[in-house]
Amino acid sequence: MNSDSIQNAKNEKKLAIGVDLGGTKIGIALVNRKGDIRDYIKKPTNAHQGKDAVISRIKETIHQLIKQSGVNIENISGIGIGVPGQLDARTGIVHSAPNLPGWMEVPLYRMVAEEFQVPVVLENDANAAAWGEKSFGAAQGVKDMICLTLGTGIGGGLIFDSKIYHGNNFTAGEIGHIIVNKNGPLCNCGNFGCLEAYSSASGIKNRISRRVKELKIGDQNIFYQKDLNKFSLAKIFELARQGNPMVKDIVDEAIEYLGVGIASLVNLLNPEMVVLVGGLTNEGDILLNQVKDIVFHRALKSNLVNLKIVFGNLEDYAGVTGAAALLWQSV
Amino acid sequence: MNSDSIQNAKNEKKLAIGVDLGGTKIGIALVNRKGDIRDYIKKPTNAHQGKDAVISRIKETIHQLIKQSGVNIENISGIGIGVPGQLDARTGIVHSAPNLPGWMEVPLYRMVAEEFQVPVVLENDANAAAWGEKSFGAAQGVKDMICLTLGTGIGGGLIFDSKIYHGNNFTAGEIGHIIVNKNGPLCNCGNFGCLEAYSSASGIKNRISRRVKELKIGDQNIFYQKDLNKFSLAKIFELARQGNPMVKDIVDEAIEYLGVGIASLVNLLNPEMVVLVGGLTNEGDILLNQVKDIVFHRALKSNLVNLKIVFGNLEDYAGVTGAAALLWQSV
Repeated sequence: MNSDSIQNAKNEKKLAIGVDLGGTKIGIALVNRKGDIRDYIKKPTNAHQGKDAVISRIKETIHQLIKQSGVNIENISGIGIGVPGQLDARTGIVHSAPNLPGWMEVPLYRMVAEEFQVPVVLENDANAAAWGEKSFGAAQGVKDMICLTLGTGIGGGLIFDSKIYHGNNFTAGEIGHIIVNKNGPLCNCGNFGCLEAYSSASGIKNRISRRVKELKIGDQNIFYQKDLNKFSLAKIFELARQGNPMVKDIVDEAIEYLGVGIASLVNLLNPEMVVLVGGLTNEGDILLNQVKDIVFHRALKSNLVNLKIVFGNLEDYAGVTGAAALLWQSV
Repeated sequence: MNSDSIQNAKNEKKLAIGVDLGGTKIGIALVNRKGDIRDYIKKPTNAHQGKDAVISRIKETIHQLIKQSGVNIENISGIGIGVPGQLDARTGIVHSAPNLPGWMEVPLYRMVAEEFQVPVVLENDANAAAWGEKSFGAAQGVKDMICLTLGTGIGGGLIFDSKIYHGNNFTAGEIGHIIVNKNGPLCNCGNFGCLEAYSSASGIKNRISRRVKELKIGDQNIFYQKDLNKFSLAKIFELARQGNPMVKDIVDEAIEYLGVGIASLVNLLNPEMVVLVGGLTNEGDILLNQVKDIVFHRALKSNLVNLKIVFGNLEDYAGVTGAAALLWQSV
């Protein structure tokens, strides 16, 4: 080993900090290059307290993590942060984050980099999750992949030629807002008939809510007796399986549109792998097989050769490990 | 200038041959690095004569072009060929070409490279047209762009980070087969409700044909008196503008789905530019403005910042110049 390679080995730092900033919780982890989590802290976001309180909590928690892990800051490659909103990683500014009140044009990069004096990388949370699955999870070794985050909304991460694809304004990957029915229901984005309006948890609940009102089913209907928001997605899928006709209709259509949307993505982008993550994947193999059936029935044969459609396998840790791994991609 | 740079200047060949192989005609051009066409020959494909006859005609025409231009083969970087079908440029094999009878697993790369002993590059014709517009046309200097070829069918070329994106099986870009209505009309691909089934020339004609049969309008209807295939797309758009209600419905829906499809692409891929080429663009600014209105009404505001939607400006020459320019991309 000559002096150059000794120097390189010293520079190649083995740990990074990943932050998964969500609307309800913040996860912060110390991650090594294999994706192992060496230390992890989870806290409520308390987003209603405003952006300054949230950013202070992020910084405090990073300090706490460094302290409790006993690692020297000099051995850390940097801090990667997955943010649930639109941002430009080139400028380090978060433009907006729908579930974080008051987050408009926040110079998050500068605020964190000044505190810790290490490299900081920002990324959209869906891209961070995609990068986690690519780096350490279900999509290791895959060059061209699409990751769908199926939760309250639907997000997406596009990885082409082993790199996150950002587009011209850093806003690529809005898979939830491909239009699957031009005359469909109103979406949170103001447009009609987006995939998110059919196949996300909020889309499914909104459609049930509207149908209940239209049908005027009356107070014998379970959805009149309780606040719909108290129903978990699991409970809604259970009602569909038990044969509640209205719920079954809406859930079946959610799955069909999800399959149709993925078939369009497969025809357009010819990925090697489609990775599904998020709450909806708790429905397990029944759901996965339904989606696969639709895609393999609908998409072009040429584009289905070698295609794999899978659930992610990092569960809640795709975001933190992916955010940490951004450091080794870009720094 | 030292001897190395003299050698480099010699190696940097200034001309390439571009072949635009179509279902009805073959265009072959000698192109310089600025995209100027130095010589051009156009011949009928006579596809019904089978693949060997077509390949012989391509080779003869390349020889003829070289001879009439007086250029020495040693000054030619190579030959780029745009093929209307599915191929793998890595193996140089054309898997299939729907409008070229008998073209199955054709080793086109080898057949042309052996004849001329120069580098040969194959590319899907829509990708070649996209590359032409990127290299010499409307999209010069644009990094992330989507090109839609709106003709008998609908094809597409995706350019991300200034490179053609091919996907896992070299079959990316099938924009005609994004599904815009899961319950829509049968598409040539066997699926239902693809963009091509609504917004391509064949889609529009098929829908008119079916509507005429359903309506049983009788022989006073102009579409009963003549073969529908004899109607040009221009004539059909003219009938729509004149207020023929059936034709207007179908043409309006073709334009609406085209706009909706592009809005989905903009949300998903956040391109800097969408370039429209092909026969439909003869409808001019009226069509372009209708499409823009839909996209700017439907797509996410964040993804519309700096977006340009334009017609290509190379007309019939996007394919040949783009095919030639492939040599300077890859060799």
